[in-house]
Amino acid sequence: MAAPRTISLDAMGGDQGPAVVVAGAALALEHHPDVSFLLFGDAARIGEHVARHPTLAERARVIHTESVVEMQDKPSQAVRRGRKSSMWLAIEAVQKREADFVVSAGNTGALMAMAKLVLTTMPGIERPAIAAQWPTLARPCIVLDLGANIGATARQLADFALMGAAMARAVFHIERPRVGLLNIGVEEIKGIEEVRQAHAWLKENAELAIDYRGFVEGDQIGQGVADVVVVEGFAGNIALKTAEGTAKQMAAWMREAMSSSLLSQLGARLAQRGLNALKARMDTRRFNGGPFLGLNGIAIKSHGGIDAVGFAYAIEVGYQMAENNVLGRLASDLEALHGKLNVPEPAGKSS
Amino acid sequence: MAAPRTISLDAMGGDQGPAVVVAGAALALEHHPDVSFLLFGDAARIGEHVARHPTLAERARVIHTESVVEMQDKPSQAVRRGRKSSMWLAIEAVQKREADFVVSAGNTGALMAMAKLVLTTMPGIERPAIAAQWPTLARPCIVLDLGANIGATARQLADFALMGAAMARAVFHIERPRVGLLNIGVEEIKGIEEVRQAHAWLKENAELAIDYRGFVEGDQIGQGVADVVVVEGFAGNIALKTAEGTAKQMAAWMREAMSSSLLSQLGARLAQRGLNALKARMDTRRFNGGPFLGLNGIAIKSHGGIDAVGFAYAIEVGYQMAENNVLGRLASDLEALHGKLNVPEPAGKSS
Repeated sequence: MAAPRTISLDAMGGDQGPAVVVAGAALALEHHPDVSFLLFGDAARIGEHVARHPTLAERARVIHTESVVEMQDKPSQAVRRGRKSSMWLAIEAVQKREADFVVSAGNTGALMAMAKLVLTTMPGIERPAIAAQWPTLARPCIVLDLGANIGATARQLADFALMGAAMARAVFHIERPRVGLLNIGVEEIKGIEEVRQAHAWLKENAELAIDYRGFVEGDQIGQGVADVVVVEGFAGNIALKTAEGTAKQMAAWMREAMSSSLLSQLGARLAQRGLNALKARMDTRRFNGGPFLGLNGIAIKSHGGIDAVGFAYAIEVGYQMAENNVLGRLASDLEALHGKLNVPEPAGKSS
Repeated sequence: MAAPRTISLDAMGGDQGPAVVVAGAALALEHHPDVSFLLFGDAARIGEHVARHPTLAERARVIHTESVVEMQDKPSQAVRRGRKSSMWLAIEAVQKREADFVVSAGNTGALMAMAKLVLTTMPGIERPAIAAQWPTLARPCIVLDLGANIGATARQLADFALMGAAMARAVFHIERPRVGLLNIGVEEIKGIEEVRQAHAWLKENAELAIDYRGFVEGDQIGQGVADVVVVEGFAGNIALKTAEGTAKQMAAWMREAMSSSLLSQLGARLAQRGLNALKARMDTRRFNGGPFLGLNGIAIKSHGGIDAVGFAYAIEVGYQMAENNVLGRLASDLEALHGKLNVPEPAGKSS
C-alpha cells in the first residue's frame, strides 16, 4: 500500500483550538499508528496538549505561527492578511507535498478562499464544492454542494456528480455510486434549466463511473435512495441545515415525550438500550468532516463546535480520501466527462 | 360578523376523491354549522357519500361535471382541455363570487395554472406563491414559496413576506408576524443578490405591518424563530420535503429503538401516553392546506393522500382566510410596499 501518511492540522481552528485538535489527532493515531502530524499554531498552547499524549508527541511536529484566522474574519481579509496564519500554513503544507491532506475546524469562508488560492482548482473546474455525509435509513450518503457557491451551471452540477462519486468511492468503498440530482416535483415547472441539462448529460453518459439514478426529491435523501445527491449550494445548504434542525426538533419532542410523566420516565429507563442505540445513530460526530472537492489537494472542514471524537472522524475522511487516491481518480473522471460535453471551458461566468 | 360562508370543493381531487372530500366537508360543518358547500364532480359518486351525512346533505349542492383533471395531466393540457372539469368549475365559483374559497386535493400544477388563469393575480403581483404551515418547537410558522415558481426577484421575495404575514394573521391571529428571510450563513458569499436586496427593503420599511427579523438559516425554522419564513420556490420546496423526510427517518429510527428488545417494548408500553402525545405532534394532517397567495381569490391545495380529518384542516385554512379578510388586508399591504419601492412594475421577467 501507500507510504505512511502525513496529516496537516490547523491546531487553532474551532471553538476550542488545540485542546480538541490535539486530542482528535491522538484518537486518529490509535486507528492509524503509522501516520504523523504537522500541527500549526501557537507552539506553547499546542505543546501543552501534545505533552499529555506521549505516543502523539513522538509522531507530531509543531510549527509555530503567531497569527490566527478569527471566526469573524471575512474571507477576503483572511486571504490578504493571514498568510502567516496557522490555517494558511497548514494548507500550504499540502501544496508543498509535505502533507497528504489538511483538516481545519476554523472559519469556513476563509478556509475555502485560502484552499482555493493555495491548492488551486483541478483542470476544467471553475468552482470547488463542499460535501458532507448525510445519515439515511440505509447507509449514509454524500450531499454536495453545501454552500461553497450559490447557483450552479449544468456543467458544474455534472462536475459535482463526479466529485461526490469520488468521495463516496473513497469513504464508503462503493465502486459505482448511485447518484441523484436534487429537484422538485411540480410537474411542468420541474426544475431549473441547469438541473435539466445536467440530468440530460448524466443520463447520456452511461459509461461514466457512476450509476446515475435521475431526479431525487428532498424527502428521498433520508431514505437512502442515492449514495450521492447533487444540488447547487444555496438549496444544498438550506437542505442540510433544515434536516439538522428537524432532527433536533424531533429529539427535543422525544425527550419531552419520555419525561412527560413518571410512567414515561420509567418506560424510558426500561427502553434505555434502544434509546442509546438511537442516540448513537443520531450522533452527528460520526458524520463530521466535509471535504472541499475540485481542488488539487485534499482539504477537510471540521465543524467548529465538535469534540475530539468528531475531529478524529474528520481526519478519517481525509485519510480515506488520500489512501484511495481520490484526486487521481477524480481527475480522470472529469477529463472523461469534459471530453464528452460539447461545451466551452468555463469562462468565469457564474450561474 | 360576516355572512355565512359558501365553500367550493373539487370533489374529484385527491387519491380517494369524493370519499375523503365529502367526509372532510362533513367534519368542517361540525365546526362551522352555518357554512354551505358547492361540490363539483361526478354527481352519482358524490351523492352516494353525501347521503351518509344528513346534515351535510341539507347544506350541500352538487354540481355535476363529466370531466376530471388527472394527476398525470400537465398543467398546460389541463388548462386547455379541462374547462369543464370539477377543478376548473370549483375555482370559477370563487371568481363568480358564488363561493368564498375553493379547496382541491388534485394535481398541484394544474390547480396552480387554473387558479392563476381564473382568479388572476393581485395588482402588482407577477407570480403567486404556495405557502404551508410548518410545525416548530414553538408555535407553527408559515413557509413560502414552496415551489409555485423557481427563483424569485427581490421584489417577489418582499411580496412573499407580506403574503405570508397576511396568512399568519388570518390563521394564527398574530397581528404583526415575525418574518425571516431564509439564507445561508457562509460569511462573504452570504446569499444571492436578490435575497440581500429584499433584506434591505424589508429592513428599511419598518412601518410595514410585519416584524422583520432578518436572515434565518435552515436549522432555525424548526426552532420557531419566525412566524413567516420567506424563500424562493426551489430551495423552499427542497427545505419542506427534506424536513418531511427527516421527520419520517427519525420516526422510523424511534420505532426501531422502542421495539428493539422486550424491555424496550415494555418501556414503550409504559411511555404510551407520552408517545401518543408525540405522535399527535408529528401528525401532519394538522398542517394540511397550502394556499396560493397573490391571487384575487382564495384557493387552497390539500395534500392528495390525506384523509377526511386532514381535508377538514385544509377547509379550515380557507375559512380563516375568508373570515379574516386576508385578500383585503394583503392588497393594501402590497400597495403600501410597492409605493415605497423605487422599482418598475414587473415586466414578465423571471428570477
